[in-house]
Amino acid sequence: MSTPQYSLIGTRPPRHDGADKVTGRALYGADLKMSGLLHGSILRSPHAHARILSIDTSKAAAHPDCRGIVTAADFPATPERIVDLGEGETPLSYIRGNMLASGKVLYEGHAVAAVAATSAQAAAEIAKLIEMKYEPLPCVLTAPAAMAPGAPLLHPDLRCKEFGQPTTAPSNVADHFRQVMGNSEEGFAQADIVIEREFTTSTVHQGYIEPHTATALWNNDGRLLIWCATQGSFVVRDSVACMLDLPVSRVRVTPMEIGGGFGGKVPVYVEPVAALLSQKTGHPVKITMTRREVLEGSGPTPGSFIRVKIGAKKDGTLVAAQAYLAYEAGAYPGAMVSPAATCVFAAYDIPNQTIDGYDVVVNKPSTAPYRAPGATNAAFATETVLDEIAETLKLDPLDLRIRNAAKEGTRRADGAKFRRIGCLEVLETMKAHPHYSAPLGEPSHAAAQRGRGVAVGFWMNAGLPSSCTLNVHADGSVGLIEGSTDIGGSRTSIAMQAAEVLGLQSEDMRPSVVDTDTIGYTGVTGGSRTTFATGWAAHDAAQDVVRQMKERAARLWQVEEVQFANGVFTGGEHKLTFKQLAARVGEIGAPVVGRASVNPRGAGGSFAGVIVDVEVDMETGKTSIIRFTSVQDAGKAIHPSYVEGQMQGGSVQGIGWALNEEYFMSAEGRMMNASFLDYRMPTALDVPMIDTAIVEVPNPVHPYGVRGVGEANIVAPPAAIANAIHAATGHRMRHLPMNPPSVMAAILRG
Amino acid sequence: MSTPQYSLIGTRPPRHDGADKVTGRALYGADLKMSGLLHGSILRSPHAHARILSIDTSKAAAHPDCRGIVTAADFPATPERIVDLGEGETPLSYIRGNMLASGKVLYEGHAVAAVAATSAQAAAEIAKLIEMKYEPLPCVLTAPAAMAPGAPLLHPDLRCKEFGQPTTAPSNVADHFRQVMGNSEEGFAQADIVIEREFTTSTVHQGYIEPHTATALWNNDGRLLIWCATQGSFVVRDSVACMLDLPVSRVRVTPMEIGGGFGGKVPVYVEPVAALLSQKTGHPVKITMTRREVLEGSGPTPGSFIRVKIGAKKDGTLVAAQAYLAYEAGAYPGAMVSPAATCVFAAYDIPNQTIDGYDVVVNKPSTAPYRAPGATNAAFATETVLDEIAETLKLDPLDLRIRNAAKEGTRRADGAKFRRIGCLEVLETMKAHPHYSAPLGEPSHAAAQRGRGVAVGFWMNAGLPSSCTLNVHADGSVGLIEGSTDIGGSRTSIAMQAAEVLGLQSEDMRPSVVDTDTIGYTGVTGGSRTTFATGWAAHDAAQDVVRQMKERAARLWQVEEVQFANGVFTGGEHKLTFKQLAARVGEIGAPVVGRASVNPRGAGGSFAGVIVDVEVDMETGKTSIIRFTSVQDAGKAIHPSYVEGQMQGGSVQGIGWALNEEYFMSAEGRMMNASFLDYRMPTALDVPMIDTAIVEVPNPVHPYGVRGVGEANIVAPPAAIANAIHAATGHRMRHLPMNPPSVMAAILRG
Repeated sequence: MSTPQYSLIGTRPPRHDGADKVTGRALYGADLKMSGLLHGSILRSPHAHARILSIDTSKAAAHPDCRGIVTAADFPATPERIVDLGEGETPLSYIRGNMLASGKVLYEGHAVAAVAATSAQAAAEIAKLIEMKYEPLPCVLTAPAAMAPGAPLLHPDLRCKEFGQPTTAPSNVADHFRQVMGNSEEGFAQADIVIEREFTTSTVHQGYIEPHTATALWNNDGRLLIWCATQGSFVVRDSVACMLDLPVSRVRVTPMEIGGGFGGKVPVYVEPVAALLSQKTGHPVKITMTRREVLEGSGPTPGSFIRVKIGAKKDGTLVAAQAYLAYEAGAYPGAMVSPAATCVFAAYDIPNQTIDGYDVVVNKPSTAPYRAPGATNAAFATETVLDEIAETLKLDPLDLRIRNAAKEGTRRADGAKFRRIGCLEVLETMKAHPHYSAPLGEPSHAAAQRGRGVAVGFWMNAGLPSSCTLNVHADGSVGLIEGSTDIGGSRTSIAMQAAEVLGLQSEDMRPSVVDTDTIGYTGVTGGSRTTFATGWAAHDAAQDVVRQMKERAARLWQVEEVQFANGVFTGGEHKLTFKQLAARVGEIGAPVVGRASVNPRGAGGSFAGVIVDVEVDMETGKTSIIRFTSVQDAGKAIHPSYVEGQMQGGSVQGIGWALNEEYFMSAEGRMMNASFLDYRMPTALDVPMIDTAIVEVPNPVHPYGVRGVGEANIVAPPAAIANAIHAATGHRMRHLPMNPPSVMAAILRG
Repeated sequence: MSTPQYSLIGTRPPRHDGADKVTGRALYGADLKMSGLLHGSILRSPHAHARILSIDTSKAAAHPDCRGIVTAADFPATPERIVDLGEGETPLSYIRGNMLASGKVLYEGHAVAAVAATSAQAAAEIAKLIEMKYEPLPCVLTAPAAMAPGAPLLHPDLRCKEFGQPTTAPSNVADHFRQVMGNSEEGFAQADIVIEREFTTSTVHQGYIEPHTATALWNNDGRLLIWCATQGSFVVRDSVACMLDLPVSRVRVTPMEIGGGFGGKVPVYVEPVAALLSQKTGHPVKITMTRREVLEGSGPTPGSFIRVKIGAKKDGTLVAAQAYLAYEAGAYPGAMVSPAATCVFAAYDIPNQTIDGYDVVVNKPSTAPYRAPGATNAAFATETVLDEIAETLKLDPLDLRIRNAAKEGTRRADGAKFRRIGCLEVLETMKAHPHYSAPLGEPSHAAAQRGRGVAVGFWMNAGLPSSCTLNVHADGSVGLIEGSTDIGGSRTSIAMQAAEVLGLQSEDMRPSVVDTDTIGYTGVTGGSRTTFATGWAAHDAAQDVVRQMKERAARLWQVEEVQFANGVFTGGEHKLTFKQLAARVGEIGAPVVGRASVNPRGAGGSFAGVIVDVEVDMETGKTSIIRFTSVQDAGKAIHPSYVEGQMQGGSVQGIGWALNEEYFMSAEGRMMNASFLDYRMPTALDVPMIDTAIVEVPNPVHPYGVRGVGEANIVAPPAAIANAIHAATGHRMRHLPMNPPSVMAAILRG
């Protein structure tokens, strides 16, 4: 099979938004100024679980700078109904409840009321004047505790959906599903070795730099205009319209530049509240969260309890696997355990599998997606059990994985069958990588010990609709209109896919990310789908342009047929480059505008592996990353620098999750470390340069073979680091984070 | 021939931008705020004609609030070349010269330098610190004076193009052309009556409420971003790119809301200056003109000298016509005499015609288009001569016109042949109108006399490219993206043309006017082309939407063929409304995005007639408008209210031009009335309610039969009022404005 030759795809041109980002000219949500702008502040619950007895806003309303106050009572009166905003079916009251609590508060930081005032400072002061009366209730903070008989119930109306059927008793379990393939009991019976282990992971946050911010203007024409930091302007539009009972087109969302999201800026928090305040005051209202609000009031990723059992033959052939996945949903039913089930054994061809998933509400913030949501927790379990199997069977851990690697045609327990994938190629690249055979090097001091670990992770990636419009300018450059918020250089990676078709350079493209009125429906920048799906739309829109340009050339030259190759139109003896023809379109006919929309099914997942060397200080339990290599299948790397950037970013976030990050909760459900001073994220001092190796196993459905690369790279790091710590210390780590006290405890346990 | 039945076209839904306009929420250019914004002020010449001896900016530059100063020397060094920005070929130096004078100043108010400072006040003060040394030169202020032998020459390098060929001697005449049809000498020889008269008209201004304003940011990525008040964002883009020697796509122009234009906001004035200041300072720079600057430094409409000679048979048949049109271009060669020649006899089928046009530079601001540019002056001449012929032959003035009215197949002296037009229908509607037979009523006092006049005017309208994109939302509403600045309700009149195709209501459309990156090339909002051409694009884009929706429905229903009529898709036994199908597009496939571009040739002109009753105070010469009826062929009135609005607006501007407006110039070329206090525009007290009668003779090239209606309505009023004054007083008026001194002088002359 010959590899297609591209002139632009695979090169590294400068990013279109680079200058604006480095000079501070790029406009983020908080930069927005507007005549008559009011500032909103949200009053939040100090309790993890409490009944709201009363809300007295009279003192606050009397403050001279107060312009309006809203509570849950200000949502329009609409009958309860089940809605689906892309994350599964949920009662409308739950969706609204997470914006402004009604009846009960379910986590510390739960919004109960909001104030609009003449300044942000005044709003915050006035919010404190709202007098709340609560009846505190006992709280539950982990999935096992919430599932225990007699546990306090968060939602008296919540009934577990057991294997798709509603049950009758109230429960904190929103959903229990089971995926079965083959017969795992029979499989385990055939195994020579069966290892079963339990794992726990803490709640962690995506940790984006930019807090949530939104400005809403309920305009006099009845339209609601929103400017915000979001990964998906259409998701904001649809969510806000749903909550406020408006037709979607009554809401226009303008996505501002975004200071990181990682999944956490898919849901909305402040947008509907700002909208209600604007409706009440008649002014535009801006709400910008503080860091404490971000940590306590937006969606972190689930903590989890996981049990994994894997059986293997002596030669390393995996014959059976079983997983019990109990994921915290946070205060409202969540969506993270389903992808966890998809990913937990996805890297391997295991004929007999049983996977149980539990979605469990607890008194913590409602969870949100975080980069391959659910998969990292699951891989932490699977990949450390595999390491233990390799150790027991005295097999090279990569050989064990290569022997069992999923490939084209491999079935998963969720019923899906893989198309062409790169699991094996990633593992083989890892094995062949110089890092894997390099000496570990001498520990930096006498009490230090070093070890190497590997692991592999999977993320299935999303499809979803995307639209793209192209406007050909007279100088041969092309305006590219898209609806995908640009988080990691996607303006350029999308533009390159159109430019390749047109025979242009990346610099010839003028990409613009526009509001929800101005572009066709486009799904979130998430699910690693942006370069994949919006890029695909750009490719198709460029083909639409070529069709029209050919028609113009045929008319200009009075010929029947026109060819286009390598950026040159030819017809008979005539010849014009794209730019030359673009300059003449004005004489020949109407302006050339190309458009395309896509809605791909089967996005093509990505595998990513890690080789990591750690040094553990045996006297303090501190783990240092000595060397780190990330290997990922990109399908086709449109702009390799951005692929590497994703791999490095996912790796660093995985390192933080592995070693330090956690919501440190008091028994009463209070987050004790709700600041970036106390919530310990990796800094430049904590991580070495992350090496990367891009594997390219083309995605057969995509015109350039692109796979999304935004997520799979975070999946393996915690497991790989756990395996490396084991290699260094001889101790198996089964709880995240593996911080110094935790590692020290393992060392001291002996 | 059956008239097509429409469900939406021809109704009067609310305008989409109405709420924003009446609440002050709409953003105009001067509303723009931006971090680091500097304010620019332009230093202008106090002389109508002078050599610039020196420019000393040292004192100004030393001012602590000064951030940058530019002069003509700051334009990039590029060799002189001929450019065409849509108004004919012109040397680049002339185009630049009108932005910032080089070598000489050619009119009072001519820009010579500009300052950027921390506030608008500081900028104005600092501009005064620039020390200019001038050598004043004699000036010429009218076309006949400038054409006289020995007249001071404005441009030593200007050579008259005589019948298309350059001549050798320097001249103030930039162009002299002649259009000939038949043989006018022979024609006059056959005539029973020949009347030849001379006319003069003063310089008048469009008088838009909003002064010119632009903010420019020369961005660190090399792109120039401009936000401004303009009738054509792409014209600004192309002009600025040309003057600053940039590829067009390096410039992005965002059109803000516009407070009137009438042609005067087609050219650029402050945009390139703000751009140069931004380049120099590294900051965004805003320049907003004062009213004095608007009057002295932007483009008014030409003053003119016209001689018209018409010959008729006794029965009123017109046999020959001759016109001599000497139009002031202002300081640089202009473009108004060519359309004047097209329009001067366009309403009539006259077999023998000779038309001479002269484009003459004078020491006044460079002229700009103003609503049917050139035609009003010309019709003032033709229509009063016709009135005199009717009077002499004792014919009803409308009967004379009806007998000779141009119709399908009538040829003009410019070589064009009319397609289906509505001249006759307009004249017959006037004749049948109750106003025409109503009694004049008693004068309001003893010294007052009343009279009635009629006249008809023509404007040929423009085509030019337009683009439109439509995004179908899940609630069945449709986002409409366009590049046409909305001056008179065109968001709605364009949206209705798409909605009619889709079976939707106007309220279902979400029109957005976007920047030059975000939409395909779209010509100016001018030439009465917007509802015609961009509406056409919207119609075609809607058909593109219907095609895609049919394909989705076919897939959904698994049927071969789908029909669409009256907003309902049917296929086999299946049936869904547009909105129902829109809600399901997400399940079936990709988002639906429609697009179309047009570049129409032969826009189809419009005729408009006036019946006016005046009362003249014989003791003061003051003329009052008693009753005014405007009749116009709209082809098809998409939104009759906006058609009526155009007719009323054009009528009022015509009344102002007829009775009061003029640049009152001193002998030294100074404008003595450069404020709205002294430049006398009509107020609500000066005009009665303008009655309208819309005639609909469909334009055969347009899908709905639309003709542009923005301009023809200003053409007839001055002539009709002159004829009414004659009817009231017995005196023929041959100079505009017909203000009290001028009418009084005619009365006193007896």
